[in-house]
Amino acid sequence: MGFKRIQDYGVKIGNLKCGENNLITDVKGVKVGHTTLNNGDITTGVTTIIPHGGNIYKEKLIAASHVINGFGKTIGTIQIEELGTLETPIVLTNTLSVGTASDALIEYMLSFNEDIGISTGTVNPVVCECNDGYLNDIRGRHIKKEHIFDSINNSGSIFEEGAVGAGTGMTCYGLKGGIGSSSRIVELEGNDYTVGILVLSNFGIKENFILNGLRAGEKIWNQSSDRIEEEKGSIIIILATDIPLSYRQLKRVIKRSSVAIARTGSFSGNGSGEITIGFTTANRINHYEESDIVNIKILNENMIDKVFLAVADACEEAILNSIICSDTTTGRDGHIRKSLVEYLNKLDLE
Amino acid sequence: MGFKRIQDYGVKIGNLKCGENNLITDVKGVKVGHTTLNNGDITTGVTTIIPHGGNIYKEKLIAASHVINGFGKTIGTIQIEELGTLETPIVLTNTLSVGTASDALIEYMLSFNEDIGISTGTVNPVVCECNDGYLNDIRGRHIKKEHIFDSINNSGSIFEEGAVGAGTGMTCYGLKGGIGSSSRIVELEGNDYTVGILVLSNFGIKENFILNGLRAGEKIWNQSSDRIEEEKGSIIIILATDIPLSYRQLKRVIKRSSVAIARTGSFSGNGSGEITIGFTTANRINHYEESDIVNIKILNENMIDKVFLAVADACEEAILNSIICSDTTTGRDGHIRKSLVEYLNKLDLE
Amino acid sequence: MGFKRIQDYGVKIGNLKCGENNLITDVKGVKVGHTTLNNGDITTGVTTIIPHGGNIYKEKLIAASHVINGFGKTIGTIQIEELGTLETPIVLTNTLSVGTASDALIEYMLSFNEDIGISTGTVNPVVCECNDGYLNDIRGRHIKKEHIFDSINNSGSIFEEGAVGAGTGMTCYGLKGGIGSSSRIVELEGNDYTVGILVLSNFGIKENFILNGLRAGEKIWNQSSDRIEEEKGSIIIILATDIPLSYRQLKRVIKRSSVAIARTGSFSGNGSGEITIGFTTANRINHYEESDIVNIKILNENMIDKVFLAVADACEEAILNSIICSDTTTGRDGHIRKSLVEYLNKLDLE
Amino acid sequence: MGFKRIQDYGVKIGNLKCGENNLITDVKGVKVGHTTLNNGDITTGVTTIIPHGGNIYKEKLIAASHVINGFGKTIGTIQIEELGTLETPIVLTNTLSVGTASDALIEYMLSFNEDIGISTGTVNPVVCECNDGYLNDIRGRHIKKEHIFDSINNSGSIFEEGAVGAGTGMTCYGLKGGIGSSSRIVELEGNDYTVGILVLSNFGIKENFILNGLRAGEKIWNQSSDRIEEEKGSIIIILATDIPLSYRQLKRVIKRSSVAIARTGSFSGNGSGEITIGFTTANRINHYEESDIVNIKILNENMIDKVFLAVADACEEAILNSIICSDTTTGRDGHIRKSLVEYLNKLDLE
Repeated sequence: MGFKRIQDYGVKIGNLKCGENNLITDVKGVKVGHTTLNNGDITTGVTTIIPHGGNIYKEKLIAASHVINGFGKTIGTIQIEELGTLETPIVLTNTLSVGTASDALIEYMLSFNEDIGISTGTVNPVVCECNDGYLNDIRGRHIKKEHIFDSINNSGSIFEEGAVGAGTGMTCYGLKGGIGSSSRIVELEGNDYTVGILVLSNFGIKENFILNGLRAGEKIWNQSSDRIEEEKGSIIIILATDIPLSYRQLKRVIKRSSVAIARTGSFSGNGSGEITIGFTTANRINHYEESDIVNIKILNENMIDKVFLAVADACEEAILNSIICSDTTTGRDGHIRKSLVEYLNKLDLE
Repeated sequence: MGFKRIQDYGVKIGNLKCGENNLITDVKGVKVGHTTLNNGDITTGVTTIIPHGGNIYKEKLIAASHVINGFGKTIGTIQIEELGTLETPIVLTNTLSVGTASDALIEYMLSFNEDIGISTGTVNPVVCECNDGYLNDIRGRHIKKEHIFDSINNSGSIFEEGAVGAGTGMTCYGLKGGIGSSSRIVELEGNDYTVGILVLSNFGIKENFILNGLRAGEKIWNQSSDRIEEEKGSIIIILATDIPLSYRQLKRVIKRSSVAIARTGSFSGNGSGEITIGFTTANRINHYEESDIVNIKILNENMIDKVFLAVADACEEAILNSIICSDTTTGRDGHIRKSLVEYLNKLDLE
Repeated sequence: MGFKRIQDYGVKIGNLKCGENNLITDVKGVKVGHTTLNNGDITTGVTTIIPHGGNIYKEKLIAASHVINGFGKTIGTIQIEELGTLETPIVLTNTLSVGTASDALIEYMLSFNEDIGISTGTVNPVVCECNDGYLNDIRGRHIKKEHIFDSINNSGSIFEEGAVGAGTGMTCYGLKGGIGSSSRIVELEGNDYTVGILVLSNFGIKENFILNGLRAGEKIWNQSSDRIEEEKGSIIIILATDIPLSYRQLKRVIKRSSVAIARTGSFSGNGSGEITIGFTTANRINHYEESDIVNIKILNENMIDKVFLAVADACEEAILNSIICSDTTTGRDGHIRKSLVEYLNKLDLE
Repeated sequence: MGFKRIQDYGVKIGNLKCGENNLITDVKGVKVGHTTLNNGDITTGVTTIIPHGGNIYKEKLIAASHVINGFGKTIGTIQIEELGTLETPIVLTNTLSVGTASDALIEYMLSFNEDIGISTGTVNPVVCECNDGYLNDIRGRHIKKEHIFDSINNSGSIFEEGAVGAGTGMTCYGLKGGIGSSSRIVELEGNDYTVGILVLSNFGIKENFILNGLRAGEKIWNQSSDRIEEEKGSIIIILATDIPLSYRQLKRVIKRSSVAIARTGSFSGNGSGEITIGFTTANRINHYEESDIVNIKILNENMIDKVFLAVADACEEAILNSIICSDTTTGRDGHIRKSLVEYLNKLDLE
């Protein structure tokens, strides 16, 4: 058993070209880091997405958020929606650790921005979450500030998927889920641009799982399943791109991630907090901008279908990667979530 | 009695400089035209705002809409919100004539765009309305397509305010209301930019009317009024500017028009459809754009308070102009709305 | 060739039970009527949904709308969103006839509500549209007021699907589309409730069409298709139910219709106006309510997944019915859209 | 100098009757508690609103939120907007302590709900904030979890206003601001219902301050002020009522709080995070509801203007109370905010 990705099983979503590593970090400057806690009842972690290599507070990025189903506790989106900018890394963790992660992210931002709270305003931490309570002692709130700092410090352009970082204790379609990523290339004016997706998957009713059109859930669970656990999940979807998009365009674009959720078999259940945040590295918004009028590049809207398709495909593949890359995991009170890899004999991949 | 504007009575809203004519048409290229029907029971009309002198379908403008209170029947905002563009003139008329106005506006657009519906998509007519049923036989739907065409054809940069065009039969704070306009200059990088407002006023409970801080309603009606008519009104607010604003910025900006409504004494009653639409002439969005990536200018968001203030002040003055410029009007079944001018002796202006 | 429905070909979407006729009219009191114009270049029509048998203006229904992709010209949703009620029938027609349909719907409502515009407020017509310009001379605006009146007058609980009414000239996934319907039963507290869907389908890129998991588009067009027409479509989705739902619940429920769009193969393209409106017959809201406080029934939110699933399944089946029930149609300039029935030999149904 | 409230100076906002104590706690069951840190550079605190006396997680209340200007870091609103319910107390504190407050609130909720995270889902903490960085060493994040627990433990139906709790370090219109409250009685069907407001005020440009129509800011600062500090403020507005309102109605109602902000002189500046959250105690939503269909009471919408007016008036008075009840405060680096009381000689109250 290993960490082969879904393409390694011959599954290809759509016809678009993937980025170099088929990861969100194919968008230049984006980095991802994990802290994984996997020890008995403690089966949780942190994943951090670094939007660019500079000081993100001083050079903000255009961003947008979209709520597919708002049974969730993500923080930071009110300001993203008002100002259309992202000014911190994005931290993912378990639901009951959002407060700690928020505090840590603030501390991190203060550490290299001495003006915050003194000569300029405050800072808007963005923290997203899913509930890993089935495998993790979530009430114990085992995430400490150091875990967030660690995930930032070990971030890079190559990162693991599956049961790692914030994904350590997550469940997707009754299988072990977690972190997944994928990317697609969109050609504009003869140049290659990249759409990258990272998901934290923790949603779906097990018999509903569809794997690239294949009714995998029915095959795995022999169809007439009994829904032991009702959906109390969530999915967080982070989109990064270097395509120049306005806030409005970015919001349209990230909405298409819901297509991927539907394609994998979910109807976005009541209990599933489904939140997506997107940002583009194409224009930097200076905190201390000196010009009254600034120039930005945006996409010719007539071309946006290309980006919509890239998002739907990359997001579907990222979800599948989050599942196929996850090891079987035993957590709190001996609860087990099995890897999809253990059921591959029931499917007909490769 | 005449059409002196509110400044002619010594009332000045805020400290900002006004544009050349203190009208929405101070924004270069914007024109306004009226068709007025004022004959016995028929007390209604049409006002059209032309956003620029070119083919607005082929060269769209960035636009946004905002619903302050949605008890209204304005059409065209779904597409404005999705695409962030305006592609037709904006027509104002009475509530039950929106359909006819829409049909006329489509016919007008088709007349010089032979590709619509053949080789390209359709067109999104924008028609706003207030209910003039107290003074007008609104059930008679006396607006015909020709009235819309006329209002377009007679549009110009100088236009009347008060009981004209769509404002012919409107009521504001129990007084005769209608069309009002005002503008403010905002300096950015040493250059003068203009914020222009046009309102169609038909809202407010009479004793609540506040005139630049003065509780005019209480003075006019001797305070303990009896609210004969409950609020069934509305206000439409159109903002034009040449300041470069993105859709998101424009949406933030037009929201500040609600400040002006509050300042004149209203709490935006249940029955009042309060809708605002804004557009900027600073960037044109080509229908047949050939570049995949386009450059646009936007405002440094740190400067946006200047624009917020200009909107609040210009909108307050536009509302006051809509009232003070309106003649006493007799309409359906002998219903009368008196001009504020008849009550000036109770106030202490000039 | 005939009008067999998708279930007649052995295709069953999901496991829930259907209503008596598997139509939106399985929700008691709901009626649907068509006016069809199919004559050479004129290939268009009107479909009207009557929400209940009483005076809908005096006894309004709780309603909500949701914009999946707002490249559309539907009218009436601003007020639905503010007040959470529907007070007219819902009319569907082609994009450039919305104005005429609106005017007709107003005239109809005035005809039996003498208070409108005299002693009470106005009325909010709800008209939805898709662009049938490929098959229809849409610029000719051939829909007249009588066509709306006719569709109301001939409404009933049994109605045709496919290339009829507003669906006469529509295209879905490159095939002839139009009107489709389906229903599902949801059991609550031992009683059967009904979720009914009616769609006006006019969306999708042809090779993307998925028929209950089968990649039908690829099979029909031999995969490597050439996208002659880009997506300029739309889909209108009307949901009726007798489940007691609040405005907020209804809004959550109708959002799940986007799952059905994704399941049939679309990523909700830029040019596709995708609008959904839902209403429940469970509580009537009196126009002249005399009590200050009123009792209503709502759903226990913990049960809402049942409704979500019913919507996703019924909507998917309604889309498929809109396609399979449509005859091959020749329209404007000899343009042809073929029926799916002509391609069944390439698929493996039945 | 003392803590006379604005009515003690003869200022009365509107004509409606106030509740017993003219506080948000006039809504039966609502309690408010403070923790105040006021010691040199540490000038901050916590205020908690307890919605009812039972287990709020098990018996949720219908709630809604509204963003007037989203330059803020309030958490918990995504779920309020989706589900329309409040399931925790509402905690107010400084911007950089939201994480800690969130963690404390989670800990508090876990302490008496053993099912959370084990046999049921998680919990949605609601924490609102303003930036008290001018008077407080906000970077020091001096709020600890105990401070939140203390504010809950000392909550009651009588509470202080002004520079206390979360209001300790806040600034409003250049004066010392903080916590203010007020209430109004609305008669429905012969019974008295209560609308209660609590604000955390930290907004406004000093010369713009209007005190019940009086241009107090201009008088205090001799008009031609120099805007030393640009607006980096915020206002949090909490509404409690026992009027039966649906989520949608509650959302409409809380929007009217923006009227009060405008009446006191603000145009809702760019940097001002203005967030409002409302809840009604009239219907309890059981976490473990056993009926599939539940009965709730809502307001006859035709009566809602009464509630709108109550909100506008109570909110305006709460803002004024937050200012007039605040003592002059010296904080970080010797920064001073003076009490309005020190300037009363320049005004003409009482």
